[in-house]
This record gives sequence, structure tokens and C-alpha cells, in this order.
Amino acid sequence: MTKSELIEQIRKKRTFLCIGLDTDIEKIPKYLLEHEDPIFEFNKLIIDSTKDLCVAYKPNLAFYESLGVKGMLSLQKTIEYIPSDIFTIADAKRGDIGNTSNMYALTFFNNLNFDSITLSPYMGKDSIVPFLSYKDKWVILLALTSNSGANDFQKLKVKDKFLFEKVIEVSSKWGSDENIMYVVGATKSDKLVEIRKLIPDNFLLVPGIGAQGGDLNEVAKNGMNDQCGLIINASRSIIYASQETDFYKYSRTAAKKIQQQMEKILNNRGI
Amino acid sequence: MTKSELIEQIRKKRTFLCIGLDTDIEKIPKYLLEHEDPIFEFNKLIIDSTKDLCVAYKPNLAFYESLGVKGMLSLQKTIEYIPSDIFTIADAKRGDIGNTSNMYALTFFNNLNFDSITLSPYMGKDSIVPFLSYKDKWVILLALTSNSGANDFQKLKVKDKFLFEKVIEVSSKWGSDENIMYVVGATKSDKLVEIRKLIPDNFLLVPGIGAQGGDLNEVAKNGMNDQCGLIINASRSIIYASQETDFYKYSRTAAKKIQQQMEKILNNRGI
Repeated sequence: MTKSELIEQIRKKRTFLCIGLDTDIEKIPKYLLEHEDPIFEFNKLIIDSTKDLCVAYKPNLAFYESLGVKGMLSLQKTIEYIPSDIFTIADAKRGDIGNTSNMYALTFFNNLNFDSITLSPYMGKDSIVPFLSYKDKWVILLALTSNSGANDFQKLKVKDKFLFEKVIEVSSKWGSDENIMYVVGATKSDKLVEIRKLIPDNFLLVPGIGAQGGDLNEVAKNGMNDQCGLIINASRSIIYASQETDFYKYSRTAAKKIQQQMEKILNNRGI
Repeated sequence: MTKSELIEQIRKKRTFLCIGLDTDIEKIPKYLLEHEDPIFEFNKLIIDSTKDLCVAYKPNLAFYESLGVKGMLSLQKTIEYIPSDIFTIADAKRGDIGNTSNMYALTFFNNLNFDSITLSPYMGKDSIVPFLSYKDKWVILLALTSNSGANDFQKLKVKDKFLFEKVIEVSSKWGSDENIMYVVGATKSDKLVEIRKLIPDNFLLVPGIGAQGGDLNEVAKNGMNDQCGLIINASRSIIYASQETDFYKYSRTAAKKIQQQMEKILNNRGI
């Protein structure tokens, strides 16, 4: 998906919500376990009931890998099931030397046909560029994450900058705002103003609203640009909104609530 | 595997070689493609012909994931086939928030029964500690990698230290030399002296000899401690030593050559 296609979807659907498919076999309603592929069945119901309310889905690879071969099949079916006008994010946080990154790029962009993948910047340029050579595919690089461990290294001072700012400054030159996004946690929304100075045009993927406690209005106030420039993720607060048989209706309600807040924000900003 | 068991294997087998199973369907001898599971067949022949010459095998997850479900089956069979007195490393370079790291730990330590996993430090403590709660399992944290991109962020100065030194200093307190190792590239062997001052007792996993050009004697001179403290990896130079039907004999020769150098080093150091 291109940047302009993504922006078009945001304008049309009045939302910049991403729903994280952190689908955990231990947390889905028990009646689904009777299905041949409970994980896919759960995802299918979530997708059917929320696809008009979001612009992206983000399967978290850890949850599928933990189920081995079965999990990989559930993931493949899920990706094929997501409508093609919805942006897909492989939340994989990979990063390795060049010949290995080539293999990961092949897996996620070619075989699984994801639009984008999350990557860790620690190994530097040659671990990232193999992903940037795919047309209309995206790298989403970790910058400032939503967890407490973000303070351990990402906020270390490198001369007058934080490490995460240095990561953004250096890596943004490896590609462009047409193929690199950054992860900035919603719990760190005060840092968005400085980040926007470094990269006014890149999209930011913002996890951490919902279960992790970040605030949507704060994030929008500090991080939005005039093309929106934000994809905000919620996972657990939407997909595990209920344990009832009709859980997906509660998921829709939870997603709808966020979409309505987002619509207001977009309207106020004239987007 | 415990630290003392690993050291015992090194003393007994007179080697600290790890063989990287970066098994690429495009690079293995063509006759293997007739087998039902060419990747496992290749690994089996490599393992049979080198298992007395190494103390560890390191499958690189990217290569298995790129083959989807088939690749995951090849990986499972490979892990089950490796003798239990050989240390196994999942070269996965994962790292995510706590609840996700829990899932990865389950996958690699419980389901696949690896002894260890490589992790990226960027997301900090809560992305690593879930792996440290498993008895006799190891975290192998990226510190200073062998690729050119290591210069982009790992060598940034944080006050008077390099970032990779800060990573070692901080993270080594999250566990102990009984459950944390560090990746330090053989191409960066000049930095091993300083690293040994920070962590005299931790094992180091050293990739980058062979295809990437690092020097074994230099690494041993600068990085060895009196319990060896090194696992040195070679991948492509061993597993792709030949394209003939009896390629595994050439792999054995390549591994034997390194083992003999290692035996000399161990003898000279009285280990």
C-alpha cells in the first residue's frame, strides 16, 4: 500500500485505528476451541465486526509462533482474509545481518504478503535496507516504545540527543516517508513534539492506548500532522472486550468508541 | 544446559565451535531436493558429520520461517535430532514487551526446547527478563554485532562509554553469568579486551569467522577467560563447503580444521 492510499483510507473511513491481533489461545472464548482453527475463527469474527472502523490490522507474530505449525496456518489464513484496502502490519520486531534480513523480507513481504513489518534498529543500516527495496512495502522501526524498558537504553543521552532521536535522525535517511514509519508509544506522548520536528512527514505507529494506559487526545495533539500521520493501535482492550459467545459485538463497541473519538479529532483538524 | 555442563563439553571435546545452520533451500546440493524434507536431510548430514567437532548448533530462524509451515517442521525435526549434550541456540533476535516476550519464551524454550535464544536489547529489561525465569535456559543478548551496521548505533558514545558497553553493563545485572551470554562479532575483536573487563565470566557468542572474515586467534587472545568463555560460530564456510553429493565430508573437513585450531588454543591456555 502506498502512503497516499493509506491517507485516502483514513479520510474515507474517518479513523486511524489499528487493531492488534494478539490472539492468545488461552484468552479467546472457550466455545471457539471446538472449531478446527480457533485462532482464525476468532480473528475472522473480529475482522468482520471491525473492518469498517480501522485502517490497519497488526498480528503479533509471537502469538502465532507459540502455536507452531498450526499458528502459522492461522496467520496465513488471517492475512488472506483481511480486505486488501486495509494496511497489514507484521509485528515481528526482527533485525539481523543483511543476508538474514533478506530472508525475513522474503517471508513477510513476499510469502505472507504483509504491507509492513516492525523492526528493531539495534543492528543498523544493513539490517534494515533489505526491507526497503520492496515496492509499496513499509519498514516500521522501533524508536521509543511504550514499555518501562524503554527507559533503559532508548532514553540514554548521546551528546545532546536521546538515543531514540538519534535512531530516527540517522535511519530516516535510509528511506523516505513513503517507506519508513516509526513506533512511538502512546505512554510517551510528551516526546511526540520533538519527534515531529525531526520527521514531520513520516507516519508513526503508536501502541499503548487501551490496556497500556496511553491517551488518544494527547497523542493526537502532539503527534498528528496535516495528513494525519498517525496509526494508533489498540489490541487487548478491543479483542478481549468480552468472553461471551457474541464477544465480537463488544469488540465492535470498543472499536467504535475509539473510531468516534478519532473522527472528532480528524474533523477538528480539517482532515 | 548449565554453565558447568557447557564448560565440561568444551574440555572433553576440545572445541568451542558453534555451527550455524543457516540452511537455505537455494544453496543446498540439488540432489537433496528429491527428499521429502530437504532442509532436515541436509541438517541431518551436517550434524552426523560434525557433532564430535562442535559444542553448539545455531539454527537461524529466518531461513526456516521463509519456508512457512514446511520450514517450521524442518526446524522441529532438526532440534529433536541434535544430541542433548550439544548446546542449541535459536538465532531469532527477538525482543518485545513483557506479555509478548512471555510468548516467545514459551515457543523457544518450552515448545521447541532450545537451550538459548538471541535477543535484541533495544526494548530494555522487561523485554528480556521473561526469558531469564526458565531454569537452565539462556539469553544471548546482542552487544556488538559483526556487520557494518554495528557502527550506526552500537558504537555511539553515551558519556564515556559506547552504547554496546552500556548495554552490557546494565543488562548483566538482570541475570548472571549462569543465564546471560553476549553476542560480540569476531570482526570487532579489538573491543573484546574492554568487554572482558565489564563481564569477566559471561560466555560470549562470537559470529563472524569464516565468510565474514574474523580471525580466530585474535578473538581467543582478546576474549578468552580461564573457563574458555567463548562459543565461536561459523555458518556458511562449514555448511556450504561443497556442492557435491558428499558435501558433508567437506563440511567435516572445514569444521575439523577449526576444531584443531581451537584444541591448540585450549591446550596453550591450560583449559
